[in-house]
Amino acid sequence: MTRNVPVPVTVVGLGSMGRALAEAFVGAGHPTTVWNRTPARAAPLVAKGAVHAEEVRAAVEASPLVITCLTTFEDTRSALEPAAPALAGRALVTLNSGSPAGARAMAGWATGHGARFLAGAVKNVPAAVGAPDTLLYYGGDKAVFDEYETTLKVLGGDTVHLGHESDLAALYEMAVGAMLLPALAGFFQGAAAVQARGLTADSTVRFAGKWLEMIASLLPVYAREIDSGDYTDAASSVNLFLAGAAQEAELSEETNVDTTWLAPLHALLERAVEAGHGDHSISALTEVLRQPGRKAA
Amino acid sequence: MTRNVPVPVTVVGLGSMGRALAEAFVGAGHPTTVWNRTPARAAPLVAKGAVHAEEVRAAVEASPLVITCLTTFEDTRSALEPAAPALAGRALVTLNSGSPAGARAMAGWATGHGARFLAGAVKNVPAAVGAPDTLLYYGGDKAVFDEYETTLKVLGGDTVHLGHESDLAALYEMAVGAMLLPALAGFFQGAAAVQARGLTADSTVRFAGKWLEMIASLLPVYAREIDSGDYTDAASSVNLFLAGAAQEAELSEETNVDTTWLAPLHALLERAVEAGHGDHSISALTEVLRQPGRKAA
Repeated sequence: MTRNVPVPVTVVGLGSMGRALAEAFVGAGHPTTVWNRTPARAAPLVAKGAVHAEEVRAAVEASPLVITCLTTFEDTRSALEPAAPALAGRALVTLNSGSPAGARAMAGWATGHGARFLAGAVKNVPAAVGAPDTLLYYGGDKAVFDEYETTLKVLGGDTVHLGHESDLAALYEMAVGAMLLPALAGFFQGAAAVQARGLTADSTVRFAGKWLEMIASLLPVYAREIDSGDYTDAASSVNLFLAGAAQEAELSEETNVDTTWLAPLHALLERAVEAGHGDHSISALTEVLRQPGRKAA
Repeated sequence: MTRNVPVPVTVVGLGSMGRALAEAFVGAGHPTTVWNRTPARAAPLVAKGAVHAEEVRAAVEASPLVITCLTTFEDTRSALEPAAPALAGRALVTLNSGSPAGARAMAGWATGHGARFLAGAVKNVPAAVGAPDTLLYYGGDKAVFDEYETTLKVLGGDTVHLGHESDLAALYEMAVGAMLLPALAGFFQGAAAVQARGLTADSTVRFAGKWLEMIASLLPVYAREIDSGDYTDAASSVNLFLAGAAQEAELSEETNVDTTWLAPLHALLERAVEAGHGDHSISALTEVLRQPGRKAA
């Protein structure tokens, strides 16, 4: 209906990501209202053309589309509480991390107040907000997504509706996010190892970047194995990884780097071998991870 | 001297990677001699134009450049032992995984027999051998690298000499490779989590691929922090990761996925906080990994 007139948008929560979101909307010509518990955070946005609301209720009342970017769902509810009576009929979109259960609780609260609800996640850093390739995904009210898709794409060109369940973004956030800390710990361990030889961490960056590309290229193959449950065509077997694991101790000794955090991963490899997956693809680890780790008491 | 005449090359070890290497040389017009403990592996290469040597010594004697692709340095020495008297004056290039200490021992053995030695690693899968973007790196005799650089680039356009120390490729292999198993375990955990909701592992692949790109984009920043030792400008703090860690338990409960392998990573985060790095960049984990993990007895 107002396809060519930029929709007024409210952004609640002006941490580094919230500021990036608000800036993108201002830059795209959307009338943008912002609110933050610490009002000083709004000043640079106001300088660029955003309107700062003193009260969160006034901020919500300013726009049909309200986007929150606080740390947790609990923070979000707590911040929005004074504005709850104003939510009815508005589209509320949360962009924060949290568990699927947290997202469902948030959805219950929001729809209980008459809001139309989407829970999403920004799969990138603040500096990437607004780029054509930046990924954001959402779960929840498809009508809200369809109505505001153009506006949501201001935040990143790769904008996806995962399904009508409000906890899907949280689910994928945790599923996909599970690679981050372990991969970084591996990078930091490698950095410490080369530094022990007088080399720079920076000297590993180009190689590590290519290695991550290589890992990404393997994922479709592994996903196919996991979805089919057929792990027999192993390009890299569990046994091969187990043989490599033995070398960690040598690296640790030579470079004085703590590799003990890898011990439970090696134990998972051994459990996979015990379960008959030794010659199967490394993706068979999924079967071991699917079971509770602790033995029945 | 023979810049335009393809150098004769010998490939010892015809596993999936060794076969890919030999195929690349045959395809590029190099007279290629191959040897494998199980001779049947050579047949498809012979059909393409390679020469199969019955004895490893004859294989070595066939070329000035001998490339081995066996599983370990021990396997390599054991396979080459009968050919040791023929190594003098030849360039020997190993492409296998192993520890830096293993590479140094191999270098001692090879140079002890008069070989000119490079130890390298293929940082990709067999199917990527020969591609312009495929990375291989080498440590050891720079004169060998310079003399055969064009030939080595047949295996991958991104071919790098790391330095004259023969264990550098093994060192980087372990440093960079340290991301692989932890990152994959995260992916498998995520796959199991979405499958517990009736969704496919494949549905995570595109998102996980973009997430790995995002992680790669962070590495130069983290490397700079690690090299400078200044962790104070934190885009993502240790405390932020610790807050996220608390959600793993919820995911585990909801999807019946075993997340206990992450426990020592969370312990590392806590040790970083104890060491005063709570508000510092997550890259400060490097400082904690640098210290031996076990307390003094």
